[in-house]
Amino acid sequence: MSETDARKQFVEELTDQSDDFSRWYIEVVRKAQLADYTPVRGSMVIRPYGYGLWENMQRLLDRRIKATGHQNAYFPLLIPESLLQLEADHVKGFAPECAWVTMGGREQLEERYAIRPTSEAIIGHLYSRWIESYRDLPVLLNQWCNVMRWEKVTRPFLRTAEFLWQEGHTAHATEAEAREEVLRMLEVYRDFVETELAIPVYTGLKSDAERFAGAEQTYTVEALMRDGKALQAGTSHHLGQHFARVFDITYQDEQGKRQHVWQTSWGASTRLIGALVMVHGDDQGLRLPPNVAPVQAVIVPIWRKDEDRSAVRAFVERVRESIGERVRLHVDDRDQYSPGWKYNEYEMRGVPVRLEIGPKDVASQAVMSVRRDNRAKESIPLAQLAERLPVLLADIQSSLYRQAEEFRRANTVEAGSKADVIAHFAADRRGFVAVAWDGSAAFEAEVKERTGATLRCMPVDPKPFAAVARPGHRVALFARAY
Amino acid sequence: MSETDARKQFVEELTDQSDDFSRWYIEVVRKAQLADYTPVRGSMVIRPYGYGLWENMQRLLDRRIKATGHQNAYFPLLIPESLLQLEADHVKGFAPECAWVTMGGREQLEERYAIRPTSEAIIGHLYSRWIESYRDLPVLLNQWCNVMRWEKVTRPFLRTAEFLWQEGHTAHATEAEAREEVLRMLEVYRDFVETELAIPVYTGLKSDAERFAGAEQTYTVEALMRDGKALQAGTSHHLGQHFARVFDITYQDEQGKRQHVWQTSWGASTRLIGALVMVHGDDQGLRLPPNVAPVQAVIVPIWRKDEDRSAVRAFVERVRESIGERVRLHVDDRDQYSPGWKYNEYEMRGVPVRLEIGPKDVASQAVMSVRRDNRAKESIPLAQLAERLPVLLADIQSSLYRQAEEFRRANTVEAGSKADVIAHFAADRRGFVAVAWDGSAAFEAEVKERTGATLRCMPVDPKPFAAVARPGHRVALFARAY
Repeated sequence: MSETDARKQFVEELTDQSDDFSRWYIEVVRKAQLADYTPVRGSMVIRPYGYGLWENMQRLLDRRIKATGHQNAYFPLLIPESLLQLEADHVKGFAPECAWVTMGGREQLEERYAIRPTSEAIIGHLYSRWIESYRDLPVLLNQWCNVMRWEKVTRPFLRTAEFLWQEGHTAHATEAEAREEVLRMLEVYRDFVETELAIPVYTGLKSDAERFAGAEQTYTVEALMRDGKALQAGTSHHLGQHFARVFDITYQDEQGKRQHVWQTSWGASTRLIGALVMVHGDDQGLRLPPNVAPVQAVIVPIWRKDEDRSAVRAFVERVRESIGERVRLHVDDRDQYSPGWKYNEYEMRGVPVRLEIGPKDVASQAVMSVRRDNRAKESIPLAQLAERLPVLLADIQSSLYRQAEEFRRANTVEAGSKADVIAHFAADRRGFVAVAWDGSAAFEAEVKERTGATLRCMPVDPKPFAAVARPGHRVALFARAY
Repeated sequence: MSETDARKQFVEELTDQSDDFSRWYIEVVRKAQLADYTPVRGSMVIRPYGYGLWENMQRLLDRRIKATGHQNAYFPLLIPESLLQLEADHVKGFAPECAWVTMGGREQLEERYAIRPTSEAIIGHLYSRWIESYRDLPVLLNQWCNVMRWEKVTRPFLRTAEFLWQEGHTAHATEAEAREEVLRMLEVYRDFVETELAIPVYTGLKSDAERFAGAEQTYTVEALMRDGKALQAGTSHHLGQHFARVFDITYQDEQGKRQHVWQTSWGASTRLIGALVMVHGDDQGLRLPPNVAPVQAVIVPIWRKDEDRSAVRAFVERVRESIGERVRLHVDDRDQYSPGWKYNEYEMRGVPVRLEIGPKDVASQAVMSVRRDNRAKESIPLAQLAERLPVLLADIQSSLYRQAEEFRRANTVEAGSKADVIAHFAADRRGFVAVAWDGSAAFEAEVKERTGATLRCMPVDPKPFAAVARPGHRVALFARAY
């Protein structure tokens, strides 16, 4: 088998989603070159195409984080064990999954360090030194960094020992301000995920059983994957004064009295790349939302006869110039691959628009565009391309959102009772199930034990689920989840 | 002492550079809130002002890295010890200063992991899997990440256990291409450091004694600090086939023959922030080059009488609007600090231009600008501000470069012999000393042992030092260094 054939097969041999979603996922991640395995337990390498996606996501989320008044900083990777141990719930939740540094050079360390699983502890320590007066508040910081959790079962992007994320950490003078911040950032995540990733989400409160170790309340944005499982796409925590008390983070108020601060933290990670894959992908591979796609449009030049070549090339150049910086464009003029091979490759990689340019297109001074989301073809005259292409991309962005929303609507059902919830998941049905929850841990535990489904959230806006609402209960959404 | 007085003193009490440069440096870093100490051995926290500087530097360097055809990726933080050990010089150079992860959760690991001191080993392993054919070459990747070296003596930005950097790693089909790449990235660093950081550098080749562990050749950009000591501001390594052989990174050439690739790596780090401080700072604090300053201009509103207040505020708003997005602007309208206190604060923080706006300025529809670099004052009519301010900033940028270049010229001398070099440094003189070097390790070792000065580089362009050139010798620059 020639190398080219081998590559062709590599692109074509993709498991169908309906045959084995989990295998489909892993294959897409590797064939689209988003990520690859490494010899480091549970750690992946994010390849340029996956990282390009992450860079676009970072830019769009970072802009929102800054627009809401936050600044970036960088805190140490290592956390002394003694600091991690100060908050009892926090250490209980995270210590069992920490990677520990015990040696520096040739020396055994007196105290071991955890590689940060999250940074509340080290940041709490520093905030206690930096915050003195009410004038120093609020403190609104964020950091983009790597974190590590020594997970037993891992899957690229969804659950890895090391992952990249942003973690915001804020301190406020009053509880009301902290609560506002928690909801503000929840809304930032909702807006970012829905607008840029084209993924509809339910925003809501976690139950006590599912909340962040050390938080008073955890809010979440929950998305639905194509296999009917839910995925937590970002969380925003009200930390109350839990860390302020143990780290002694206090300020002098306007009356000269010492007060503990109120804190929040919130994070979103490279997990979102996994969500993108599983919400929009199909049996041909990725379908990337144009707002974050590393390549928004790819030009594939076509010629059979050598005499066509220079005319096609010259026209490609004119197309490139007319598009300019409006669109992230890639021209694939490699000789060793056929146009058909390239079509497969860019479908696998989910490039939103393919522009085919052959001798006929040159003759008509137009390009043939093919949408990745619905395969619709359209010949676009060169003179209109610079205007038409951005419109096309915007349409693909909203079409992907609409499809995901329709899928979610079709896979969100209402249940009248706990028994109904259990019956739904026991029959191997998926999706979200809305039910009136009495707030008891027993209800939640029974559903989980019998079906594996968990309480994803109590929606911030329960109105769409008014049919299941009952006095003295809260609407809750259950689902199997990643 | 009131809190305000305490803060005032905090700003005013800065050690003079001439009294104790080292203490001045640490004080500026902390008072300007670039960074702070942490309870993690040798690790600092980069505070928002320092990180804002880093973000601007990243953006400007990343743009150059991408413009030269590179893409970003992300490789694992941890490196299995067995991989690190494959290249003999590499492990000898780095293993003694690695932080080691020996436990994951509650389990002792079978093989320990180093927190990456640099990523040649893990990347070499992955390149051996990714590269098959000459068509896969060149591979041109870069990553922005944290690295860790368990240094004994640390100083914020200059030498810390953990630091942030970018590391480029490329693989090529031929030695000539790899050599070209090494010099291309050296030139990227030179251009970035000189253009954006306003720091003149000498580019050159390191001696064998000073080269990167595992490299065949190391090129460097060397800058001169205000205390006359040199600082390595970025390095570009020709790795030859050292890693390709031990990691078995091969490709099939056009004739179907297996060949080892040729590799390069190159890096620049948060150390550059230390260079900025030490090249441009003065007895009042930082002086930041406008191209990277987080705040390029600060508006300080001034009023004595309450009745002036609303007029000043309204005018400040008009100024803000007229400047728009042209300049990174901050308005400091805090009531609890006096204008004088704010002047000190922003001088400490090195903001390039201060715009004072009081009742008189409102009356004349102008603002009083004060340059941080030379204190020159200039009243700028509101109508001209949007045009004048960017010109002023460009002038400050080139003025800072010119001052640094003049300082370097005054502190670069020529020596006729090894004895002259030793005499220079033995007399506690600093700066660069150019000399004809016979290439012997003994020469280098003797200078180092007797004076502490090291061979910084053999200039790529030796013409400026033609006076010391001798047949059979290479021009070398010696200096005490950080």
